[in-house]
Amino acid sequence: MVPHVVIIGGGFGGLYAARRLSRGHVRVTLVDKHNYHLFQPLLYQVATAGLSPGDIATPIRSLVSRQSNLEVRLGEVTSVDLAARTVTLKDGQLAYDYLVVAAGVSHAYFGRAEWERFAPGLKTLDDALELRRRVLTAFEEAETEEDEARRQELLTFVVVGAGPTGVELAGAISELARFTVARDYRRFDPRQAKVLLVEAGPRVLSAFDPALSDKALRSLQKLGVDVRLSTRVTDIDARGVRLEGELVAAHTVLWAAGVAAAPLSKTLGVELDRAGHPEVFVVGDLAAIGQPGGGFVPGLAPAAIQAGEHAAENIIALVAKRPTEAFTYFDKGIMATVGRASGIAQAGQLRLSGLVGWVAWLFIHIMYLIGFRNRLLVMIQWAWAFFTFGRSARLITGTSPEALDRTLDVERVA
Amino acid sequence: MVPHVVIIGGGFGGLYAARRLSRGHVRVTLVDKHNYHLFQPLLYQVATAGLSPGDIATPIRSLVSRQSNLEVRLGEVTSVDLAARTVTLKDGQLAYDYLVVAAGVSHAYFGRAEWERFAPGLKTLDDALELRRRVLTAFEEAETEEDEARRQELLTFVVVGAGPTGVELAGAISELARFTVARDYRRFDPRQAKVLLVEAGPRVLSAFDPALSDKALRSLQKLGVDVRLSTRVTDIDARGVRLEGELVAAHTVLWAAGVAAAPLSKTLGVELDRAGHPEVFVVGDLAAIGQPGGGFVPGLAPAAIQAGEHAAENIIALVAKRPTEAFTYFDKGIMATVGRASGIAQAGQLRLSGLVGWVAWLFIHIMYLIGFRNRLLVMIQWAWAFFTFGRSARLITGTSPEALDRTLDVERVA
Repeated sequence: MVPHVVIIGGGFGGLYAARRLSRGHVRVTLVDKHNYHLFQPLLYQVATAGLSPGDIATPIRSLVSRQSNLEVRLGEVTSVDLAARTVTLKDGQLAYDYLVVAAGVSHAYFGRAEWERFAPGLKTLDDALELRRRVLTAFEEAETEEDEARRQELLTFVVVGAGPTGVELAGAISELARFTVARDYRRFDPRQAKVLLVEAGPRVLSAFDPALSDKALRSLQKLGVDVRLSTRVTDIDARGVRLEGELVAAHTVLWAAGVAAAPLSKTLGVELDRAGHPEVFVVGDLAAIGQPGGGFVPGLAPAAIQAGEHAAENIIALVAKRPTEAFTYFDKGIMATVGRASGIAQAGQLRLSGLVGWVAWLFIHIMYLIGFRNRLLVMIQWAWAFFTFGRSARLITGTSPEALDRTLDVERVA
Repeated sequence: MVPHVVIIGGGFGGLYAARRLSRGHVRVTLVDKHNYHLFQPLLYQVATAGLSPGDIATPIRSLVSRQSNLEVRLGEVTSVDLAARTVTLKDGQLAYDYLVVAAGVSHAYFGRAEWERFAPGLKTLDDALELRRRVLTAFEEAETEEDEARRQELLTFVVVGAGPTGVELAGAISELARFTVARDYRRFDPRQAKVLLVEAGPRVLSAFDPALSDKALRSLQKLGVDVRLSTRVTDIDARGVRLEGELVAAHTVLWAAGVAAAPLSKTLGVELDRAGHPEVFVVGDLAAIGQPGGGFVPGLAPAAIQAGEHAAENIIALVAKRPTEAFTYFDKGIMATVGRASGIAQAGQLRLSGLVGWVAWLFIHIMYLIGFRNRLLVMIQWAWAFFTFGRSARLITGTSPEALDRTLDVERVA
């Protein structure tokens, strides 16, 4: 009987593990709750209307359709029984000989789960569409609002957390207001929109060299972003954000402050630490979180890819009864953009910033994007946005929670 | 005081009326419940994963941002008071001197409103995403289904109505199954999927010349579509479709059989017929429906554009106290595609079919698409799909009604 490998999650870690296992004498089942692989580094561009979902998501099945030892299963994992070696899905069960857990992470609200409703985070495509809906709707409501104070609330956007996602979101929203929709409204000037970026630590992009953090900070300020460093959020509700006393009235609050393992993975992590299961491999962002102190492997795509491929190699070794090897992370560097034509990058001794950093960011992201078609489409849209300041995907779709509430009320009455 | 024109609807009729009014000494408010203009002729391609929503939708504001006598209002019209000359929105009221009603149409279920739940129609972007979700989910569920009869139900797709939308949907679903996802599943052969196209009339695409209808029929059959002509649907429920006795068990049923004016427009139409209001203009698909016998203006984009511009000219004339002119429709012809490299077109004495018809269809649709960027992106994706048989937007997004039901249950318990 050929050993069965179950991989939970079709992100970078899971997908590259699956692909590498084509070399092994195993059969593989890749489980994901979505039918697509998502290029998460560009998710903020969907949230800020720069790209369409289809540009950064590719059906998992089409990525592995030629790999004959692999099956894809659309499903949500509810529990893992490490003793029995089974994975339970909402609609079934899978027995495994080897397990790769690449389930990714979720938002962490530091014990304030009630904030999520008012300040959604950005991890999934549905998150991105919800963020886009909130941002675009705020401008629309500002156009019909008669009360000046209330209008300013609608035009106030608060981003919590100045890591790469927070910085990129704040920069993109500020650009959207100052350039893209600048001429689109008649009753207010979109350039009066306020974008606040709130960070508890003393600098933005703290993973970078302090000199680069400083450059990013100045780029943000040049874009009109009001950056509040060493400032803690003490409360978030429907009216806005409270910052150690000061109340910032804001219609739109976005959360980019922290990630956590999902409850399933948490339990799993504890059990794995206690017992040690050589047939189970944890890779990707989840593994990054798993490290005490968080110092080992960062939650980045290249790290997830390396760890996924490494787990696959070790499984192939175990099946062949060869010794496994310890994982060593090859640091390819880190990079971030801060709006139009400005980025920072560091790798080894190399430091890039400004236009050069931005061009480097651009090429690396195009390179890593899966599929020639996606690369071409994204390049065209970026070129288009660069020259016209336009954003292509400014669509308000989906149902707002309020509209949903209304439906529910109607149903309850009926 | 400058006369105020209110336009309800930002489709072809409303948008072209608004643009033409830039020449008039009027101020214009364009109201739409969506923030984008939708290129409806390609909506079926979003429903069948060929294009992304962003490719066929453009923010209305960006289309008219330079038109200084125009305001865009995002909002839903709940009623029109013809006597008082006011339009009531969910969140406000607008007084008008002239009114252009270009509100479009909705699905008509011929008195069987309960069918809508099982057989959704295709008029909006949200409709298209729901159809896409249903079609793609059916294949996913077929992969995990153990019961062979149930699997065949999941792989049975019924399209009701063989007008252009029905024919295009049926052809595209058949192509999706036979080419795009042909190698993507392990437990069944997607080519065993059945696509039924059910039509009450004696031929497909009855607006066309019978010889062209016949060619389209043969193209559909070559694509593997099971076309049932002169066949009436007698019932639709969760199990499938009943056709004058025969029960076709099907997981996915799509409705393309008829359109009707929305309730608001219906009331309005009756009142307009009774009283006659020279300051009110009804254009677009709604006007097509309004004609007794339906023989006058077809529900097509070119007709809506002409009627919209004509209404604008007449409003300009009325404001200038010049006489108005009657509308004459200039028939540019009709066209439809039947899957890959096959289309039909007729204009005057001209008849095109096969590859030539398809190329004509392609160029006309690219030409009419608004915005150079959209044209470029759509062309690239069509070229890509043509050479690779791939479909770019195979993403299952949004919440399924069942998942929503589950959430509600949880909330009710809590």
